[in-house]
Amino acid sequence: MTLPAPRLEVYPVELQVEVDEYLARLSFATDSATAGLEEAMRYSLLAGGKRIRPVLALATAEALGRPTADVMPLAAALELVHTYSLIHDDLPAMDDDELRRGRPTCHLAYGEDVAILAGDGLFAEALRLVVERQEGQPEHVLAALGRLVSAAGVEGMVGGQYLDVTATGELDGPALRRLHERKTGRLIGASVECVLLLRGMVEPATLGYDRFAVELGVLFQIVDDILDVTGDEQALGKPHGSDARHGRRTYVSVFGLERARELADESHRKARAALAEADGRTQTLERITDYILTRQR
Amino acid sequence: MTLPAPRLEVYPVELQVEVDEYLARLSFATDSATAGLEEAMRYSLLAGGKRIRPVLALATAEALGRPTADVMPLAAALELVHTYSLIHDDLPAMDDDELRRGRPTCHLAYGEDVAILAGDGLFAEALRLVVERQEGQPEHVLAALGRLVSAAGVEGMVGGQYLDVTATGELDGPALRRLHERKTGRLIGASVECVLLLRGMVEPATLGYDRFAVELGVLFQIVDDILDVTGDEQALGKPHGSDARHGRRTYVSVFGLERARELADESHRKARAALAEADGRTQTLERITDYILTRQR
Repeated sequence: MTLPAPRLEVYPVELQVEVDEYLARLSFATDSATAGLEEAMRYSLLAGGKRIRPVLALATAEALGRPTADVMPLAAALELVHTYSLIHDDLPAMDDDELRRGRPTCHLAYGEDVAILAGDGLFAEALRLVVERQEGQPEHVLAALGRLVSAAGVEGMVGGQYLDVTATGELDGPALRRLHERKTGRLIGASVECVLLLRGMVEPATLGYDRFAVELGVLFQIVDDILDVTGDEQALGKPHGSDARHGRRTYVSVFGLERARELADESHRKARAALAEADGRTQTLERITDYILTRQR
Repeated sequence: MTLPAPRLEVYPVELQVEVDEYLARLSFATDSATAGLEEAMRYSLLAGGKRIRPVLALATAEALGRPTADVMPLAAALELVHTYSLIHDDLPAMDDDELRRGRPTCHLAYGEDVAILAGDGLFAEALRLVVERQEGQPEHVLAALGRLVSAAGVEGMVGGQYLDVTATGELDGPALRRLHERKTGRLIGASVECVLLLRGMVEPATLGYDRFAVELGVLFQIVDDILDVTGDEQALGKPHGSDARHGRRTYVSVFGLERARELADESHRKARAALAEADGRTQTLERITDYILTRQR
């Protein structure tokens, strides 16, 4: 990739570790009768990954001068919602994937019925985490919750996945962007926006962050599509070319690899420019933006 | 059934009509690209049914001397959550049911992938409805939301369904009650409790209602199990004996039909007694309790 020579290996691992430790301590029921369900939920939740959504939330708290611990329940909830979507997307009736983060997918490990319920359970428990443990003024917690469920719903993630599984024929560039904006972009964006809402921030103070959040979602998806073609299977934890195998329209299939790389660079530049206009200590958000462009998995 | 001769045909149809009208007007996305997903969601949501959960919520508002319209978003959300659970429970990997409310199940009508997403979407949109449209003090709306997601999560509905799909061998009476308490009872209970929380009520003012809510959930399930054996297929909208076909443990399979009927009567009596201790104009809640005991479908 060309342009501003983003630094490699700049990911804020210290925040990822905070998230991992918090997630590992979560439990969802007082009754051991559903221990098997909790095991399936934790199997997928604790399979690793960069925790980009919660790390973005913590980095946004940092940018606003707040301790990261202040937003941890909300940050963790974003990862629970993301994990629920992966479990359901991997199901035989959907993408029928066998590997995720280098391990058998949830339905292969625990059966399809338990996998459906593990996804359903993670979604409910994500919201419960926010309601029961997220501190903040009630109207601000409600506003953050609203953004989270909206990003997860028909106008967001679920709608995007519907567009993905039902798409037939060619998609042009704008249609592709709309699909991914809903499927992936809205939840990435919510990872930043929910924290602003939790702090009671409203426009115009949030405008720079809002533009950043939208563009970061686009950047994330373009790089994801590139890595599906060029990435290392072992590093990715899933087989190569699975997009093509599923006949999925990607930035690479629509624009070709070279143009997709240019689009990633453009998107990275826009995200950084938006961030430069946002008030606050945005250094960690900058590092995450660079990481998302240069990541190899 | 014996005892206090509960009145037949006492169901508050006027509240059911209010709910149906509100549900029919709901839409979930501004973008027509996901019209097919919305259609599948509405197909299941608008398939009829007694709307017991939202009607309970409206009747609880009435008991507290509030207009029913005040709690309609919350009431509707309960039905969306219930419908989502039916769609997922009917999936081939779960109960593999073909008929629901007299029509092909969602996955037969729209495909398994769309049905999974329709369920996921209904859950997200239920919560969005409460956050965006339910009036009330923010801390009270949050408390009601907390009860709703807790009733839907691992300690509630999802956990109960897990116990149901994974149960092997015999269940004794208490284990059966625990299963149904989570699978069905918690959401029925939440239909009453969420409205109390929304009004900012706390113990001891809620104790009578709380006991009522728990017992009503039990009553509902016992009668459901009886109807699966004795009910009219056409009225039920699903084939007879589907519990036995699935090897499901029910109040009838564990206790026999006669004892199950006695248990239903006991449960009805306890629910009515709890209600008698609750402050407020509880006449409509009494009618619903009688209806649940005497219903034929």
